[in-house]
Amino acid sequence: MATAGKVIKCKAAVAWEAGKPLSIEEVEVAPPQAMEVRVKILYTALCHTDVYFWEAKGQTPVFPRILGHEAGGIVESVGEGVTELAPGDHVLPVFTGECKECAHCKSEESNMCDLLRINVDRGVMIGDGKSRFTIKGQPIFHFVGTSTFSEYTVIHVGCLAKINPDAPLDKVCILSCGISTGLGATLNVAKPVKGSTVAIFGLGAVGLAAMEGARLAGASRIIGVDLNPAKYEQAKNFGCTDFVNPKDHNKPVQEVLIEMTNGGVDRSVECTGNINAMISAFECVHDGWGVAVLVGVPHKDDVFKTHPMNFLSEKTLKGTFFGNYKPRTDLPNVVEMYMNKELELEKFITHSVPFSEINKAFDLMLSGESLRCIMRMEG
Amino acid sequence: MATAGKVIKCKAAVAWEAGKPLSIEEVEVAPPQAMEVRVKILYTALCHTDVYFWEAKGQTPVFPRILGHEAGGIVESVGEGVTELAPGDHVLPVFTGECKECAHCKSEESNMCDLLRINVDRGVMIGDGKSRFTIKGQPIFHFVGTSTFSEYTVIHVGCLAKINPDAPLDKVCILSCGISTGLGATLNVAKPVKGSTVAIFGLGAVGLAAMEGARLAGASRIIGVDLNPAKYEQAKNFGCTDFVNPKDHNKPVQEVLIEMTNGGVDRSVECTGNINAMISAFECVHDGWGVAVLVGVPHKDDVFKTHPMNFLSEKTLKGTFFGNYKPRTDLPNVVEMYMNKELELEKFITHSVPFSEINKAFDLMLSGESLRCIMRMEG
Repeated sequence: MATAGKVIKCKAAVAWEAGKPLSIEEVEVAPPQAMEVRVKILYTALCHTDVYFWEAKGQTPVFPRILGHEAGGIVESVGEGVTELAPGDHVLPVFTGECKECAHCKSEESNMCDLLRINVDRGVMIGDGKSRFTIKGQPIFHFVGTSTFSEYTVIHVGCLAKINPDAPLDKVCILSCGISTGLGATLNVAKPVKGSTVAIFGLGAVGLAAMEGARLAGASRIIGVDLNPAKYEQAKNFGCTDFVNPKDHNKPVQEVLIEMTNGGVDRSVECTGNINAMISAFECVHDGWGVAVLVGVPHKDDVFKTHPMNFLSEKTLKGTFFGNYKPRTDLPNVVEMYMNKELELEKFITHSVPFSEINKAFDLMLSGESLRCIMRMEG
Repeated sequence: MATAGKVIKCKAAVAWEAGKPLSIEEVEVAPPQAMEVRVKILYTALCHTDVYFWEAKGQTPVFPRILGHEAGGIVESVGEGVTELAPGDHVLPVFTGECKECAHCKSEESNMCDLLRINVDRGVMIGDGKSRFTIKGQPIFHFVGTSTFSEYTVIHVGCLAKINPDAPLDKVCILSCGISTGLGATLNVAKPVKGSTVAIFGLGAVGLAAMEGARLAGASRIIGVDLNPAKYEQAKNFGCTDFVNPKDHNKPVQEVLIEMTNGGVDRSVECTGNINAMISAFECVHDGWGVAVLVGVPHKDDVFKTHPMNFLSEKTLKGTFFGNYKPRTDLPNVVEMYMNKELELEKFITHSVPFSEINKAFDLMLSGESLRCIMRMEG
């Protein structure tokens, strides 16, 4: 391409400081260096994690920064040593990578790559410790190796999943993060068998994706647990058969679930990160075979507490990161699940705005109105 | 047989009260009722659980009682409805049963039978709520449905594993409880792959059986953790390659293990029941793929505490009961592992005494000298 090897000037949404509306700016995007790829982003979505690091409460603030990590795009050019991707390839950027060389990448069980595991504090490329974004010479920090709130971005090749070019990027872009996280938590980790009973704690996008996993696995009873009763109606589209609001009961919700299910649910998936929900999600599974899977990210000072006999009665407690999907190896197959009309993605996409209205997407998420809002880069 | 349908008079070791030496008495053993089997015990071993309920500290005392639950015997006669066993069959009594009808028995994952799950407070038969033992008309209580400290005992058919009659009962009798518990914890639950690193917490009989499982699975590094340095020498016979005494270190033993193994062990098995050891056993496993299995029985007031991020880094915590073996379905196969010379049992049997010297077996266990002491009923 004519742009290969040259700086590209394009639009990006820059977070200049914590909590302040993003500003659409003209940025310079440097060419990709060794093992890097420059991607033209076509669609990006907004995830809670973007909002969390934009608010920067209780974190080391890293600003000015280009946020964004759920997206779909096309390779513009590749740096030295990149052989798996070429200009024109369709890709999903992922906030955590797969180097294919470390012990984790070589393990069938782990997706927590030693080299490219998520790093929320690093605002630069891993190769040379520098940013590829500048505004009139001032470096702008990257975010989790993706920075998709930009028409062009530079990403390590290990953080890009090459997908079927027939897949509509305005739909499959949401597989970059939250939807795969929830879906994989159920399909790859909880692994409910057909006909089983599954409880999902927290009915946001990740929880509903976990529920979609339970529906795909053929669970016959899917119990949604949420403090907001309005979530039930939406959850029905994802297979929810029962709804429990912990506020409606005088006893711990795990006891309510155990009574409803004659001894406990077969599988539970916790998607809130609230420590009490985590404990409830574990304690509500059936003895002998129950498996609880933790997805939600807890507060750093939280302590998980339970009576150890809960384990000796043959309950299992596991956690997952990005649904145990290896980004490069597994995401292309998740895209195929959508292409084969097994996995339904449209129902997650509640809003769509042009990129220029990105702050509206933040408002929709903060107000709880949206599950996923897609931003069209060329809108 | 000539004795079928009649009361049998024989010797039994009776615990008249908590902590007092057992007394060898002549007892009357009633014929088996519906779904029951009368078994001639040939060999019985002593397990910590017998000692625990003999001491009866902090429990509801159930006396006078015939203890004993690790044993091998031969069916003398069967009650109404028993079709799977016949006089002459070789059997191992098990403290927990398998009815083959309940949800747990029908689940591939559970061995926690609803009907015949261990009940330490019940001193009578489940069928009619009565004891089959009397001394001059006075009922003597049963123990965990087995009461093997008697030349004859009556056991529910669901608590008897029919085994290969060629198997030497003086060896395979120890598969009734502790050895299967440890072995199964590793082979059925932790499931280390060939070449992996396994930590075993607590090097008593159960822990050494867990270690034997790791050896059989082909673990290349087996780390024993115990407060008693004398345990290392014996553990070497079970495949122990490294020994860690938590007392030798100023930091938590999980940190020591993580440093020794460049990130954590692949699998750990906790066999002490000490709550801090349980927490260490979980926290010492490798992120991404580590699995910790809890076997030891904790104190009823213990609380398991850990930071929930330990789960989100893809560590798994499971517990097991009787090594996840279904007594009737699986124990015959464990006996075959011994017959095929894979599983080594002789090294667990450190002592042997005639039944009349049963109190010596208690002394050997209380002093920590024995792993397993076999009592010969016809010695």
